[in-house]
Amino acid sequence: MKNTFGNSVAVTIYGESHGEAVGVVLDGLAPGIPVDKAFIDAQLTLRRPAGKISTARQEQDDYHIVSGVFEGKTTGTPLCIMIPNTQTRSKDYSATRALARPGHADYTAYCKYHGFEDYRGGGHFSGRITAGLVAGGAIALTALRQKGICIGTHIARCGGICDRPFGNLKEDIAVLSQMPFAVLDQTAADSMYAKMEAVAEEGDSIGGMLETAVIGMPAGVGEPWFDTLESMLSHALFGIPAVKGVQFGDAFDLIDAKGSAYNDPFRMTDGKVTPVTNHNGGINGGISNGAPITFRCAVKPTPSIYKEQETVDFMKQENAVLQIHGRHDPAIIHRARVVVDSVTALVLCDVLATRYGTDWLAVKEV
Amino acid sequence: MKNTFGNSVAVTIYGESHGEAVGVVLDGLAPGIPVDKAFIDAQLTLRRPAGKISTARQEQDDYHIVSGVFEGKTTGTPLCIMIPNTQTRSKDYSATRALARPGHADYTAYCKYHGFEDYRGGGHFSGRITAGLVAGGAIALTALRQKGICIGTHIARCGGICDRPFGNLKEDIAVLSQMPFAVLDQTAADSMYAKMEAVAEEGDSIGGMLETAVIGMPAGVGEPWFDTLESMLSHALFGIPAVKGVQFGDAFDLIDAKGSAYNDPFRMTDGKVTPVTNHNGGINGGISNGAPITFRCAVKPTPSIYKEQETVDFMKQENAVLQIHGRHDPAIIHRARVVVDSVTALVLCDVLATRYGTDWLAVKEV
Amino acid sequence: MKNTFGNSVAVTIYGESHGEAVGVVLDGLAPGIPVDKAFIDAQLTLRRPAGKISTARQEQDDYHIVSGVFEGKTTGTPLCIMIPNTQTRSKDYSATRALARPGHADYTAYCKYHGFEDYRGGGHFSGRITAGLVAGGAIALTALRQKGICIGTHIARCGGICDRPFGNLKEDIAVLSQMPFAVLDQTAADSMYAKMEAVAEEGDSIGGMLETAVIGMPAGVGEPWFDTLESMLSHALFGIPAVKGVQFGDAFDLIDAKGSAYNDPFRMTDGKVTPVTNHNGGINGGISNGAPITFRCAVKPTPSIYKEQETVDFMKQENAVLQIHGRHDPAIIHRARVVVDSVTALVLCDVLATRYGTDWLAVKEV
Amino acid sequence: MKNTFGNSVAVTIYGESHGEAVGVVLDGLAPGIPVDKAFIDAQLTLRRPAGKISTARQEQDDYHIVSGVFEGKTTGTPLCIMIPNTQTRSKDYSATRALARPGHADYTAYCKYHGFEDYRGGGHFSGRITAGLVAGGAIALTALRQKGICIGTHIARCGGICDRPFGNLKEDIAVLSQMPFAVLDQTAADSMYAKMEAVAEEGDSIGGMLETAVIGMPAGVGEPWFDTLESMLSHALFGIPAVKGVQFGDAFDLIDAKGSAYNDPFRMTDGKVTPVTNHNGGINGGISNGAPITFRCAVKPTPSIYKEQETVDFMKQENAVLQIHGRHDPAIIHRARVVVDSVTALVLCDVLATRYGTDWLAVKEV
Repeated sequence: MKNTFGNSVAVTIYGESHGEAVGVVLDGLAPGIPVDKAFIDAQLTLRRPAGKISTARQEQDDYHIVSGVFEGKTTGTPLCIMIPNTQTRSKDYSATRALARPGHADYTAYCKYHGFEDYRGGGHFSGRITAGLVAGGAIALTALRQKGICIGTHIARCGGICDRPFGNLKEDIAVLSQMPFAVLDQTAADSMYAKMEAVAEEGDSIGGMLETAVIGMPAGVGEPWFDTLESMLSHALFGIPAVKGVQFGDAFDLIDAKGSAYNDPFRMTDGKVTPVTNHNGGINGGISNGAPITFRCAVKPTPSIYKEQETVDFMKQENAVLQIHGRHDPAIIHRARVVVDSVTALVLCDVLATRYGTDWLAVKEV
Repeated sequence: MKNTFGNSVAVTIYGESHGEAVGVVLDGLAPGIPVDKAFIDAQLTLRRPAGKISTARQEQDDYHIVSGVFEGKTTGTPLCIMIPNTQTRSKDYSATRALARPGHADYTAYCKYHGFEDYRGGGHFSGRITAGLVAGGAIALTALRQKGICIGTHIARCGGICDRPFGNLKEDIAVLSQMPFAVLDQTAADSMYAKMEAVAEEGDSIGGMLETAVIGMPAGVGEPWFDTLESMLSHALFGIPAVKGVQFGDAFDLIDAKGSAYNDPFRMTDGKVTPVTNHNGGINGGISNGAPITFRCAVKPTPSIYKEQETVDFMKQENAVLQIHGRHDPAIIHRARVVVDSVTALVLCDVLATRYGTDWLAVKEV
Repeated sequence: MKNTFGNSVAVTIYGESHGEAVGVVLDGLAPGIPVDKAFIDAQLTLRRPAGKISTARQEQDDYHIVSGVFEGKTTGTPLCIMIPNTQTRSKDYSATRALARPGHADYTAYCKYHGFEDYRGGGHFSGRITAGLVAGGAIALTALRQKGICIGTHIARCGGICDRPFGNLKEDIAVLSQMPFAVLDQTAADSMYAKMEAVAEEGDSIGGMLETAVIGMPAGVGEPWFDTLESMLSHALFGIPAVKGVQFGDAFDLIDAKGSAYNDPFRMTDGKVTPVTNHNGGINGGISNGAPITFRCAVKPTPSIYKEQETVDFMKQENAVLQIHGRHDPAIIHRARVVVDSVTALVLCDVLATRYGTDWLAVKEV
Repeated sequence: MKNTFGNSVAVTIYGESHGEAVGVVLDGLAPGIPVDKAFIDAQLTLRRPAGKISTARQEQDDYHIVSGVFEGKTTGTPLCIMIPNTQTRSKDYSATRALARPGHADYTAYCKYHGFEDYRGGGHFSGRITAGLVAGGAIALTALRQKGICIGTHIARCGGICDRPFGNLKEDIAVLSQMPFAVLDQTAADSMYAKMEAVAEEGDSIGGMLETAVIGMPAGVGEPWFDTLESMLSHALFGIPAVKGVQFGDAFDLIDAKGSAYNDPFRMTDGKVTPVTNHNGGINGGISNGAPITFRCAVKPTPSIYKEQETVDFMKQENAVLQIHGRHDPAIIHRARVVVDSVTALVLCDVLATRYGTDWLAVKEV
C-alpha cells in the first residue's frame, strides 16, 4: 500500500520538501472527535526546528484542514490536512543533484524513480513530510486521550548521556506533553543540549534513543501473527526517517537474561490481572496485556553533515567528494519524538477501531 | 489483515499446536518456481527440535502440498501446505488452563477470544505454527536463490557468548545453510550449546540475538514511507514468537556515533555504486541500495520454564503459583533462525514482485 | 490481494479441480460462533450436482475443519477447511490441453501462468473451488442468523421462464433454505427443470438470473466511496465463475424510469424510518438503509457444452475444432445460488465486523 | 480500506460538496508519466455541468497539483490534487437538514456518522467529489494511452432512446474523447438531449445506461478468484454515485441464451488468438483475453427532483413532506461517463502495475 498505512483507520501521506505543500489524509476516524486546533499547533511547534540545534529553515506550518471536519468535530469521512511549504530555497540543491549524500536516499530514490524524483531537499524523503503525520497524529492523540489512553516519549539517550528512566508514567507523560526538549532529568537535558551544540559546531550530527510509553491501553488488542501490536507499531515507526531499530520492552537490553528473570509474573492488583514487571513491554503473543506498552527507537545521526564526505556522482558513475551546504539539523531526535507519539497514536487508533468498531473512538459511546 | 501478510505475494497462516494440522497458503508466487521437496524437508529439519536443548515433542512434519504445485513447479495459484500434528498430548495443559503462564499469550488470548481459544499447548500462538512458515519459506528461498538473492542467519549472541561477526557473506551464508546449529565460530558454538544445556538443567531458559544478511538484493526496492523495507521486514519478523526487537544495520549498537562515522560513504567498486561501510544495513530512505541487507533480532528467552512462577488464575481472578509441566524448549533461538530466514524470504518475494511484477521470480524471464 | 478478500473478516481460497483438495481459510471471524456440521453438510449438498441437469462427477465433500474450531465453536483464529478431491479423472483433459474451450479460462490461464497452470478440469478456475466458499459460508450464515440477518436466493429467470417475485421475504427465505431447486413457484420450477433437461439432451447449456434478498441488516453499514456495500458485494460476487452481471435493486430493470418513480420515499413504519419502495435495493450512498438488501446476478450459460466448437490450439497457434468430452453441467445456476448466499454472508460478516468490531458476530454480546 | 482503492496503484479520495476543497491522492503511479494539464482541464470540463440539463452550480475546477509532479512528469511518489470549492451556497440546505431526501444518502449518513456528517449539499456523498477522480483519472488515461490502451464510454440508452452500438472501436473511442455529449448517433443525441430538457421542465430526473469499451488491453491480466478483472472494475464503478448495476459483455442482455450462442469461439486472426464474438466482454475466468473489455453501467435517475416527495424527519422521527430547492441536475449520465472512464483507467493502471511491476506504465520501458 506504499504511502498508506492502516486498516480501519488509514493514513495516507503526500508532499515534498520543496513542493507546494505536505500533508496527510486520515480515513476511518470515528465521527465526533473534537479537533483542537490549538493542540495541533502545539504539536507542530514541538516538531518545528528551534535554536542552534536545528536547521535554520523556519516554516510557519500554517495548515489547512481541507476536509473531514465540520463544526469543530471529525465527520468520519476522509480528513485531509495540507501544510503549505513557504521557506523553500531550491537553488541550494540543484548543483549537487547527482552527488549521493551518504546516509540519505538520493541514490536509492534515483534507482527507484529513474531520475524523475523531485530531488530538492530530499523531496518526498524529507523529514519535512512528518509535519503531516504530526498534524494528523494530534487528532488521533486527542481521540485516544478521551478514552484514557495517553502516550509519551522522551530522549532516553543521546551522545552517551542518559535521561532518568520513566517513573510514574501518568505524571511523566503529562510533563513530557508540555516539554519542548523531552528529557525528564534537567541535568541530562542540559548535557544533551550542550552536546548537540558542540556537534553542530563541529559540522557533525548525532542520534540517540527514544523511549515511549502508552498507558490506558485495554488488554486484548492485537493479532497473534502478522498483525501483532509489535508488527503494526514497528511497521509505522520504521516509516519515520532515521529510525533504524525498534525494541519492545527490554529486548536487546536483556539479551543475556534467563526466562526466570525476563518473564513478567502476574499478580492481582486493585482487582485486576497485572504483570508485576514489564520486560515484555505490555504485549504477550502480539496482544496487549493491560500493562503500559513500552518501546524504544534507535534514531541514527542526521545524515546531513557539513564535513566533507566521500561519495559518487551516480549519473556520471564516478567517485566524488561532497561538501553539503544548505540548512540542516545537527540532531533531529528532539524533533522526532513528537513524530513517534503521532505515529503511535495513529496505529493505536487503527488497531482499536479494528477491534472495537469504527465508533469506539467517538467521544461518547454510541 | 490479521493472519495474512503481503501485497503481491501474500502468506496466510493457520493451525494450532494441538489441532489437526498447521499450515500456510502462499498466494501470488510466480508460476514455474521449482518446488524442491528435499529442501523443504531440510528446512523443516532445521526448525525441528533436537537433543537436550529442545522440547521432547517430535513431529515428523510429514507435510502435504495440497494445491498450487503441478508437475514439480508452482502454478501461480494459491499454494497450500498442510503439516499434520501427530504428537499431541493435550492432557498436559487442561489442568492449568486458567493459570496464565508468564511471558506467554494465555491471558491475552483469553482477553481477546473470551475463553473460546484453543488453549492446548498455546493453540494458535504456539511456535509450532512456524512450521508452516518454514515450509512456505523454503519455496520462497528457492525462488530468490535462482535470482541470485541469498539469505543467512546466525546466532550472533546467546547467554553472553558472541559468535564471530559475518565475514565473507557469500561463504558464510553457504555454510550456514548446512548448519544445524547456526554459529560460525566452532568454539562459540560449543560454549553456547553448553550454556543451553546448563540452563535446561536448571529448569530455566535463554534467548539471544540473531543476525541476518541478504546478498544479491537489487538497488531500488522498497517504499519511502509506510512500506519501507524496514517496515515490511519488521512487520513480519515481529510476527515470529519471541522476537521483541529488530534493528537494521548498526542502529542500537552505534547509538552514540556521530553522522560522520555512521553515514556510509559511496565509492565506485567494480563499476558499481557501492557503500564503503554498511551501518545502514543496505537500506537508505526505506529503499535497498545494493549493499547487503543486514539486521538483528532480539529473541527473548523461551517463556516456558520449569521453575515455579508467580501468576494468576484469570478465570477465578486470584493469585496462584504455577509449575509448568509438559514438553518445552530451554532455548528456541537455534530453531528460530530458519524461521527468520523463511519470513525474510517471503517478504522479499513480496516486495520484489510488487516492484518488478508477478512474473519476475519465475525461473526464466518471461 | 488475489485469492484473499475482506478486511476484518477475510477469506482465502485454494485448490484445483483435480488436485489433492480444495478449501478455504477464514480469518477474523468472531470467537464463539457455533459450528453446525450438519448445516455445513446441508449447504454442500445444495451445491453438489444431482440428477440429469448436473455433471456426473460426484464428490462426497467429506470436509475436515483443520483449524480454528474448538469444542464446537469458532476460536477466532484462522479457520481452515479442507475438502479432498476424490473423483478426479485427469485423463479426460490431457489430450485437449492446448485447445482453448470457448468461454473457459484455458487460454487466459495460459497467458497468465505461461503453461505452468494445472489445466486438469479447469484447475484453480473450476467451479469445484466454490465448495470451499460454501463450507466457509455456512459458518458465516450461522453467525449472521444469530444476529437476525438472513439471506435467500432464488432462480428468478432461466431459459425464458420467470419465477414469481419475492413476496414475504422472511417466509420465502425460510422456504428457500430447504429447497434443493430454489424456485419459489412450483410450476416455474417444473418448467425450468424440464428446460434444463432438454438443453442437456441437445448437448448445450443454459444460464439465467439469480435474485438475492438479505433481511435484518442494520442501517448505517458500508462506506461512501470505494467500499460501498455494492462495491464489496459485487467484488466478491464477480469472483464466482459465470457471474457476469450484478445489479442492486432495480437498476437495469428500471433503466427508463424517472427519479419520481425510482426514488424510494421514506415513511415511519412501526416506529422506524422505512423506505416505502425498494428500488435502491436497501442501499443509499453505499450504506445500508435498513430495508432488505436486494440484488440480481446474471449467470452466463455453462461454457462446457458437447456441441462441436470452433477454437484454436494456443500452443501451436493454429485454428482447431473442439469436441468437449468429460463430465459437465448443462446448467449451474441451481447450484450457484448457494454459492451466492455463501459469498454474500462472508462479505456481510466482513463489513459488519469492520463497523461494529470483531466481537459483534459472537453469539452473546461480549 | 474505505476511501482508498487499489493495490499497486491506489487512489484515495477526500472532500465535501461545500467544504474547502475536493481532491485525490494517487499513489504508486510510475515515475515519468507526462502530466498534461490541458488534458486534465478538458476532462474536468466534460464532467462540469453545462446548459439546462445540468445544475446551475458552476465550479471553475481550478485545480492544484500539490505533490508528486516535478518538471511536468510524475515522480512516482504520492500525487495529490486539490480542487477548491468556490460556488458553495450552504444556506440552501440547512433548513431541511433532517428531511431525508429519497434516493440520497442523508438518512444512511446519519445512521453511520451519528449527526456529525457534513450534510451541506450531500457532503462527502456529493457527485462533486468525482471531480478528484476525473483529475486523477486524466493522468491514468494518459499513461494507458502511451501503452496503447484506450477507453471510451457512450450513453447507450437514456429515456428509452438508444444510441447506435459501438462499431469500429478505435474510431468511436477517438470521437467520444472529444464529445461533450457522448452519444455516437446524432439523432439519438438530439432526442436524448430533448428528453433531458423535458424532464428538467417537469422538475423530474432521468437515468440510463453507459457502455464502455477498452482496447489494447494485453491478455493475461486479472486474478482467478477475488480480484477478477470484473471484481476490481465493479468495485470501483459501484463507488460512483448513481451506478446501481454493472454487467460485463452481454450478461443480462443474453440472459436466455444457450452456451452455444454465448461462448466466444477463438480463431487465429492476424497471427493472434482472437475471440470471434465478445459476449464475455474480453474477460474469461476473471482474466483479460486480449479482446476489448466491454461493460455497461446502469445509472439511476438523479435523486434530486423538484417534485414534492414523501419522506421523514429522521431527527424528530416523524413523517414529513419534502420540496427540494437548491441547484440540481435533471440528469447526470452525460457527466458520469467521464467519471466511468476515469475510474476504469485508475483500476487498469492498478492491475497492470500489479501484473507487470511499478515501472511498466512509465513512458519508456525502464
